[in-house]
Amino acid sequence: METLTAAILPQTIRQRPANSHKGTYGRVTLVGGNRNFGGAILMASAAAVYAGAGLVTTITDASNQSSLHARLPEAMFADMRQTTQLTDLVAGADVVVIGPGLGTDDAALATLQQVFQTVTAQQTLVVDGSAITLVAQHHLTLPAVPLVLTPHQMEWQRLSGIAIADQTPERNRAAANQLNATVVVKSHRTQIYTPTGSFQNPLGTPAQATGGMGDTLAGMVGGFLAQFSDHQDAVLAAVYTHSAIAEALAASQYVVLPHQIIDALPQYMHDHQAH
Amino acid sequence: METLTAAILPQTIRQRPANSHKGTYGRVTLVGGNRNFGGAILMASAAAVYAGAGLVTTITDASNQSSLHARLPEAMFADMRQTTQLTDLVAGADVVVIGPGLGTDDAALATLQQVFQTVTAQQTLVVDGSAITLVAQHHLTLPAVPLVLTPHQMEWQRLSGIAIADQTPERNRAAANQLNATVVVKSHRTQIYTPTGSFQNPLGTPAQATGGMGDTLAGMVGGFLAQFSDHQDAVLAAVYTHSAIAEALAASQYVVLPHQIIDALPQYMHDHQAH
Amino acid sequence: METLTAAILPQTIRQRPANSHKGTYGRVTLVGGNRNFGGAILMASAAAVYAGAGLVTTITDASNQSSLHARLPEAMFADMRQTTQLTDLVAGADVVVIGPGLGTDDAALATLQQVFQTVTAQQTLVVDGSAITLVAQHHLTLPAVPLVLTPHQMEWQRLSGIAIADQTPERNRAAANQLNATVVVKSHRTQIYTPTGSFQNPLGTPAQATGGMGDTLAGMVGGFLAQFSDHQDAVLAAVYTHSAIAEALAASQYVVLPHQIIDALPQYMHDHQAH
Amino acid sequence: METLTAAILPQTIRQRPANSHKGTYGRVTLVGGNRNFGGAILMASAAAVYAGAGLVTTITDASNQSSLHARLPEAMFADMRQTTQLTDLVAGADVVVIGPGLGTDDAALATLQQVFQTVTAQQTLVVDGSAITLVAQHHLTLPAVPLVLTPHQMEWQRLSGIAIADQTPERNRAAANQLNATVVVKSHRTQIYTPTGSFQNPLGTPAQATGGMGDTLAGMVGGFLAQFSDHQDAVLAAVYTHSAIAEALAASQYVVLPHQIIDALPQYMHDHQAH
Repeated sequence: METLTAAILPQTIRQRPANSHKGTYGRVTLVGGNRNFGGAILMASAAAVYAGAGLVTTITDASNQSSLHARLPEAMFADMRQTTQLTDLVAGADVVVIGPGLGTDDAALATLQQVFQTVTAQQTLVVDGSAITLVAQHHLTLPAVPLVLTPHQMEWQRLSGIAIADQTPERNRAAANQLNATVVVKSHRTQIYTPTGSFQNPLGTPAQATGGMGDTLAGMVGGFLAQFSDHQDAVLAAVYTHSAIAEALAASQYVVLPHQIIDALPQYMHDHQAH
Repeated sequence: METLTAAILPQTIRQRPANSHKGTYGRVTLVGGNRNFGGAILMASAAAVYAGAGLVTTITDASNQSSLHARLPEAMFADMRQTTQLTDLVAGADVVVIGPGLGTDDAALATLQQVFQTVTAQQTLVVDGSAITLVAQHHLTLPAVPLVLTPHQMEWQRLSGIAIADQTPERNRAAANQLNATVVVKSHRTQIYTPTGSFQNPLGTPAQATGGMGDTLAGMVGGFLAQFSDHQDAVLAAVYTHSAIAEALAASQYVVLPHQIIDALPQYMHDHQAH
Repeated sequence: METLTAAILPQTIRQRPANSHKGTYGRVTLVGGNRNFGGAILMASAAAVYAGAGLVTTITDASNQSSLHARLPEAMFADMRQTTQLTDLVAGADVVVIGPGLGTDDAALATLQQVFQTVTAQQTLVVDGSAITLVAQHHLTLPAVPLVLTPHQMEWQRLSGIAIADQTPERNRAAANQLNATVVVKSHRTQIYTPTGSFQNPLGTPAQATGGMGDTLAGMVGGFLAQFSDHQDAVLAAVYTHSAIAEALAASQYVVLPHQIIDALPQYMHDHQAH
Repeated sequence: METLTAAILPQTIRQRPANSHKGTYGRVTLVGGNRNFGGAILMASAAAVYAGAGLVTTITDASNQSSLHARLPEAMFADMRQTTQLTDLVAGADVVVIGPGLGTDDAALATLQQVFQTVTAQQTLVVDGSAITLVAQHHLTLPAVPLVLTPHQMEWQRLSGIAIADQTPERNRAAANQLNATVVVKSHRTQIYTPTGSFQNPLGTPAQATGGMGDTLAGMVGGFLAQFSDHQDAVLAAVYTHSAIAEALAASQYVVLPHQIIDALPQYMHDHQAH
């Protein structure tokens, strides 16, 4: 298991080419946020925008439209119940993030299944939060596309069947292989299992143990995947950046709020991009 | 009556353990905010989040969903009229805060009674604002659970029957004993009656005499109780922190807005935590 | 005609007494904001809160509830169509501000008439914006209560019958006397006609010539009147403060946004209060 | 083709005359923002306000009312479906901006046609985003009024019939002449074709390649046109300012968010106005 270092940042975060446009930086479609958990998809969407994704669309419960645009006018909105539009927006994305605030009811399950049926091998799918729980509960088959799963330890237990106490690198590695996915097991020292390696994040602070941190990371992962061609590096750099910013903020804060990490992304990424 | 000092802060605000997660810092469920007073529960909820509570859920009138998430995506939302969900969310909390902006109509009374029937001795209940008025008006029996009441002087008069002019430490002490509760009597020099002591807050500034200050304190009390195991210290430290931040801001402001106190919490708590 | 100086500020803005509570600083009820002009009443309400009023209630179109609390959780909300509640909230205020964004349709007229019938000589009424136009259009009798009118020059023409070109101090003075009101005639050099004097504001910058400035001033006038016992001084100090902050911001800005003036109020008032 | 320099700024951005009012700085009416793309018209509207336009009205889908005022209380709102009001507000404007987030469905087409039928030669019309696509798709005749078109290269291809690879200055110049319009062809080095000249913007950074940048520019163009009498200079200065602010922000940010450009407008315009 390799320990991440700051070297992952300039290795991943390219200098933007002068002759480029928003399409160069990818389309991210995020799906989540039921009536109760709208904040989760707002934070994930903001993370994707502030990480530099070119175009971000948020598919969520209709009741979240106003708060989304009050916080984040840069994102486009779509109503999660309009299934034709959902299919179109998922099909048109480079990266799809599903799960933040999605919930686990029947409507959430139907949405998740629709997304699974729509994505193709030319896209990358990030499965987070309640979407992971739904996969575990309903024994869903994950689609055969480039996959990133971002469970916390309890969600990983549900999905992999490995109890938290038994989540050793060896067993996690084997389970990730079986899922044919990159797996980010979130904890105070997050581990990342990619198709070709296993990595330990040396960073992280208890100041970031607060609601919304995982949603924010999922959005960042989506934003990095949309922009950076090496997908393993994109995931690793997103995880590292998330914790590094949190540690920096924790130097003067007892708790770090997710939106503060989001706000800090543009400057942090500037300071750590390739030279 | 003991006068609080800054020593209460490092005595209470622990250094967060490295190996922790959001569950470590408690679940706070806040109930309040009718159609007119939505801002009150928004401020209380934000205070709980910014004080470092691990997971915060706001149960409020449906019309407050958008403004809640526009200001505070970190909180989860639930509709106050959905009684089954309300019961579940109250039952699942470590700390329940009821009252900010709740109002005093029949619906508010029904909600309060439902919360009183749901909470158990394993939880802590903070009763604030109009919930106190409802208890007094309807002669409700307070539930036999760890209780913190946060009345201002007029609400305390309603609840205790002691006219404001007669609210001496002795009479307040006796009334708190009879209620079997920790009582925070808010005034320009707030007093706190815990099961084992009586305390005077030496801080406070007239710059904080503005709407929403009490709601903010109630949320902070909830956030501190969720994190810090000594409940007396948690309440004392929340009261002290609230006034100390207000005094600091009042050094350059004629009036201190409640949301400014909230914004200042993470840094203030960092600077005054245990070493 | 006397030219205002900064001396009006410490003469008006008292040091807050230590033993005080939010009631000490007055209740302001603001009425306005139809479906189109909700921003106007939001800015007026925020100005009253940030100026230090103790309790602020905003009576506005129901569609403005979310944006009000997303910006200003410190204010309470009421639906302008609920006439009983409106009457209660107007009756319970120390200062009523009517007009910002009210519009001039039949519903606005009915609301204005209801307010005129409710206010008493123990209250102060600030009439602004479209409320002034309604008074002029419908030849309404102003209520026999302490009155402050804050027309811009065109609204003053409508109300007084004096064409803008003819608005000399003498004619304005006479018209204000006849109205038995304090009149603030807003222009790039605002004039104030109180029962006992005529005053010229020497400040003001073209950077503040933008939508919402008048709404903001109306809210500030309401906030100052609620707190400061000399009503002439309160109005004069509010006008002076509004322009002084705008001039300070214009030192580095081409245009000054109303919400920036609001944000600057607590510090400006601190720096210019009585010693 | 002339390369723009910073000289365009003081040549355009006049010092505001002392004796002026909000009417001096023009009325801008912006039309756009369907249910999905509300953020676009919010950003365009904010850009017009922060650029200094005197009065700004946003005509948009009703579902965008709350987010508009939560972000921008300085703008007035109108419901895009209320056609009589739309006609009145378009007729009363000095500058009309149509397109940001308008969409391309039948309702959008009807709105666009209504605007085209309402504007007169005394007004300036800015056509942006999906409005350009609608013109191309439906072969609409542009109205015979002062016109500014702000397509990106793909929209310009649709409108002019010139494939992106073939968009040479000569062909663009000829197409702009035929359209009898000022055309701003947005790319990483934006070109502007006015009735009397062709200009190259030397500024621009890949950090601004993100959703909402074009909407923001359209609003700025509207705001500059409303204030500055030489319309060629107004368009040129708006384009230059947009990129210059983006470059300044990109000195420390990996991506520049549109709302950050908007926030920076008042200070940038102050620093570069005529002496």
